[in-house]
Amino acid sequence: AQSTVTLFGVVDIGVSYYETTSKYQNNGTVPATPKPDLQQNQWALSNGGNAGGRVGFRGQEDLGGGLAAGFWLESSMWGDVGTVGRGALYFDRRSTVSLLGPFGELRLGRDYNPTFWNDAVFDPFQTSGSGSSLIVQMLGSAFPTLSLNRGFYARKSNSVGYLLPAGLGGFYGQAMYAFNEVVNSDALLDNPATSNNARTGRYAGGRFGYANGPLDVAVAYGMSTVADNYHYGSTTSVTTANVGASYDFDLVKLFGEYSKVDVKTDFANIGAFPLTPALSPVPDVRTNNFLVGLTIPVGVGLIKASYSQVKGEFSTFTRYGAVPANTPAPKAEKYAIGYVHNLSKRTALYATFALTSNENGAAIPVVNVSSADTGPGYTNTLNSFAPGYRAGRGYGYDFGIRHAF
Amino acid sequence: AQSTVTLFGVVDIGVSYYETTSKYQNNGTVPATPKPDLQQNQWALSNGGNAGGRVGFRGQEDLGGGLAAGFWLESSMWGDVGTVGRGALYFDRRSTVSLLGPFGELRLGRDYNPTFWNDAVFDPFQTSGSGSSLIVQMLGSAFPTLSLNRGFYARKSNSVGYLLPAGLGGFYGQAMYAFNEVVNSDALLDNPATSNNARTGRYAGGRFGYANGPLDVAVAYGMSTVADNYHYGSTTSVTTANVGASYDFDLVKLFGEYSKVDVKTDFANIGAFPLTPALSPVPDVRTNNFLVGLTIPVGVGLIKASYSQVKGEFSTFTRYGAVPANTPAPKAEKYAIGYVHNLSKRTALYATFALTSNENGAAIPVVNVSSADTGPGYTNTLNSFAPGYRAGRGYGYDFGIRHAF
Amino acid sequence: AQSTVTLFGVVDIGVSYYETTSKYQNNGTVPATPKPDLQQNQWALSNGGNAGGRVGFRGQEDLGGGLAAGFWLESSMWGDVGTVGRGALYFDRRSTVSLLGPFGELRLGRDYNPTFWNDAVFDPFQTSGSGSSLIVQMLGSAFPTLSLNRGFYARKSNSVGYLLPAGLGGFYGQAMYAFNEVVNSDALLDNPATSNNARTGRYAGGRFGYANGPLDVAVAYGMSTVADNYHYGSTTSVTTANVGASYDFDLVKLFGEYSKVDVKTDFANIGAFPLTPALSPVPDVRTNNFLVGLTIPVGVGLIKASYSQVKGEFSTFTRYGAVPANTPAPKAEKYAIGYVHNLSKRTALYATFALTSNENGAAIPVVNVSSADTGPGYTNTLNSFAPGYRAGRGYGYDFGIRHAF
Repeated sequence: AQSTVTLFGVVDIGVSYYETTSKYQNNGTVPATPKPDLQQNQWALSNGGNAGGRVGFRGQEDLGGGLAAGFWLESSMWGDVGTVGRGALYFDRRSTVSLLGPFGELRLGRDYNPTFWNDAVFDPFQTSGSGSSLIVQMLGSAFPTLSLNRGFYARKSNSVGYLLPAGLGGFYGQAMYAFNEVVNSDALLDNPATSNNARTGRYAGGRFGYANGPLDVAVAYGMSTVADNYHYGSTTSVTTANVGASYDFDLVKLFGEYSKVDVKTDFANIGAFPLTPALSPVPDVRTNNFLVGLTIPVGVGLIKASYSQVKGEFSTFTRYGAVPANTPAPKAEKYAIGYVHNLSKRTALYATFALTSNENGAAIPVVNVSSADTGPGYTNTLNSFAPGYRAGRGYGYDFGIRHAF
Repeated sequence: AQSTVTLFGVVDIGVSYYETTSKYQNNGTVPATPKPDLQQNQWALSNGGNAGGRVGFRGQEDLGGGLAAGFWLESSMWGDVGTVGRGALYFDRRSTVSLLGPFGELRLGRDYNPTFWNDAVFDPFQTSGSGSSLIVQMLGSAFPTLSLNRGFYARKSNSVGYLLPAGLGGFYGQAMYAFNEVVNSDALLDNPATSNNARTGRYAGGRFGYANGPLDVAVAYGMSTVADNYHYGSTTSVTTANVGASYDFDLVKLFGEYSKVDVKTDFANIGAFPLTPALSPVPDVRTNNFLVGLTIPVGVGLIKASYSQVKGEFSTFTRYGAVPANTPAPKAEKYAIGYVHNLSKRTALYATFALTSNENGAAIPVVNVSSADTGPGYTNTLNSFAPGYRAGRGYGYDFGIRHAF
Repeated sequence: AQSTVTLFGVVDIGVSYYETTSKYQNNGTVPATPKPDLQQNQWALSNGGNAGGRVGFRGQEDLGGGLAAGFWLESSMWGDVGTVGRGALYFDRRSTVSLLGPFGELRLGRDYNPTFWNDAVFDPFQTSGSGSSLIVQMLGSAFPTLSLNRGFYARKSNSVGYLLPAGLGGFYGQAMYAFNEVVNSDALLDNPATSNNARTGRYAGGRFGYANGPLDVAVAYGMSTVADNYHYGSTTSVTTANVGASYDFDLVKLFGEYSKVDVKTDFANIGAFPLTPALSPVPDVRTNNFLVGLTIPVGVGLIKASYSQVKGEFSTFTRYGAVPANTPAPKAEKYAIGYVHNLSKRTALYATFALTSNENGAAIPVVNVSSADTGPGYTNTLNSFAPGYRAGRGYGYDFGIRHAF
């Protein structure tokens, strides 16, 4: 049996420096004594600056008649400290069994979801290190009110996926449905005092693309139910729509992506039940985000650069009234540049520099805090007109070694 | 060194539906208004419907002179979410080093215990999925007062095992002793205020069988000490005795098992010390359990069916007086049928349907709650003559893919 | 890619007995009724009696031009129960990526630190089982006030290491710097109410040696910052200096080591800020430790013996006044003897017996408590002149099987 199993992984470790600056702002409404900028900084041994650290097993078996079976078990791995997986999730990156045939692939288990792929594939830094696109950082967790996304952003457990077969003239595509595995119970459904969440946790989405010669373009759409209350009829969902493309001109390869992500609470039963604080939903928020980037091959090396922007827009009226009218839209921008020096197909040295800038309470640092490290954050007051500190600029750089096996 | 190591595993994931019904019962003692049945149900991506998900390493070294050394490290793996092991136990299924020779095998570490094997080998569904025998479900945890078994039911850490060599004319056998690793301390032993448990955790058992041609038959006996108090002289033990057999008639293979498991508290020192609630032991209970089953090969496929029953009997008098006389014996029954379609030796599609029925406070669903999922339970009142809800029927089905590597 | 990956490990399990005796002491200051000795003992299935249980992956890639890349991922493994790693640290023994060349090796990640090596290499029992040197036991945790060492004693995460190349006429060496990864924050630095620890966690050290023919000798020096307070200017550091040597006379191989480890708190800002209990630093302590040992090959077997001693010396005056003048120096001694019977290069049977003796509040048992087991300790009162129990003798033995793959 062993002959068909591949043991694979990536160990990617670097030395990084991160710094953030928070600025005191008056906002024009109250006279305030100026206060000095506040800085935080950190030197760290960092992980996955060029490619996410991982270790896994995968294999495939030819079943004859064009059929095959496959499995893929892959863990995150933070090489600087030696941790694996995320808490109780060991094969957190992917854990699937597949049946493959002329019809395509049926895939069961924990997997990347369709809406994540455009964020990763059309980012020159492919979600890794200080250069990672702001779209990935925000949806991964570092944006107000969107941390709800965590449960589904990149991957979903308990999923059934279908992938189109190869050989469709360049067209490719996939769809995924993920069970919430909630136990539905007669006794609980109509009790307002109980936390009913029969719809929470579901994900459904799809992606469709075309790759031919230098061109690759894809669209994706998905919806995840992140909170609900059966009694009140409320459902909070995160809807993601994105489109990305790359074109390889040989001398330079261009990348672009546009992404729209909405968090929205619907009320099917609103007439019958007045809202109560017990529901504690989040305000509706819409984000409009985009990225442009390029890579330039230079001998065995590759230069990478990108600009990404995320912008949130709170509904001026929500049923909860939590967000005042005229709240300025939080916005963040990021400039990233990097160089990868390939010593072989599997091994590379790399350097990356990136700069983020935040407005109106957005507070995204150069890298998100990972499960194995704490990084510098901001002193930040979101959406308040009172004077106070707001997240300003952040920057960081990585120098590292990536080795794949 | 690597040449002798085998990396192996099973990824088995399916789509399952589970449902339970609890019924309101009057019990003839108090007039009560009838209440409607309560249902719970769940759709889930399930694991190990055909064979327990796992991943492991094993190997053997020939030492010459008929001697060999071997090791076996095997983890549980829940493919639907990617978790591995059970909490802090990583190689939770098996973790052993062995010395093998003409004398048999000496095996040290964490291993299946002898009394578990008959429950697994003589169950057509081999402990897996919705079809798993009720005996396994009950002893694994889903029966009142027997959840004490958890520490030893299927496996024991800190064990020394001995297995008979092959070539004894069909006879086979094994014995195991597992240390409790309790620190014995002069200062604690005679202090009634201290929790003294110098005997808790020990397991000793053995299994002896005969397999020849179509016949396989085996008996097993074991005892595990699950609680004790040195000062009061009390010891609570779980005693397991079972016998199983299978006979292969080619067209059909028949399976049968009978199992008796007792939880009993003995008092060596009862005259000197009156019992106190501080001891909090459990009532004595005896269970009588059996299974009959069959498998029928159909081309590349295999039909499986089984009926299993577990029945508990509380001692009408226990020293704690916790169980009223004439408490009706809790009882559960299960009917299971399944089909396995082998695409190869390693890969199969399968479907299983099973139905359980509970009486007198037994509350076993179609599958036990695993460490990675929560499933539907019952609304249940055990051993009470007052009106209330009692566990009734439960059913469930699995459709899945099993791939071994 | 797989061809270059080696899966390796050690499964080493044995049966062990441990016993400790604590003695009631009058100390000459107060009349006291004699009390009987207190004993604790334990039978256990033990791990790593001959070599630490582990499982890992490692590999190397030739990059041409004398360059190579390598990785090493290695977990602890407690075979008796099947646990792996240490809590959240999975590849806790080593997790590194390396760039190798004529210049030597640059190694990033979690690794053994330089000061640990002399303790391991020049101990005939190489830190394993009941025979393990007292120096390793004490620094690993079993000595008053030195448990601070835990964070760095054998290994350090977030480290950058450099190793000299081979081929320097027998000279070898390495240096390591480990980041503390503390976030430095303007806002926190000058706040006495905040726990400021901008220097805590750092490690810097090196080792230099000469190995040629029968001789191997090496010195090492390192410093780890284990606590600090920026506001008060205090820094607590552990400084380690050791030297070890072995000489192989063919009939017998001799081993020796001397080690000095100091825990010391410096106060840069002492004039400005009176000390407060809030700082809760530890008293300064200096330890002087040594080991002598030998191994004698006997056919396929190896006899091992060692004597090790650790002795702590509290500063008679510390700024905290916690330790009275004339506090007698805690001291422990250990005698160990063992035999290893090699069945092959990878597989061995072994037996070890060891005896420790403690004075003046030292309380080191024959083996330290591991993360997977609890062992017998002592009833002990350190540094008090009042009558009470003090740790006395402890002994233990192991019989086991070690199999490497």
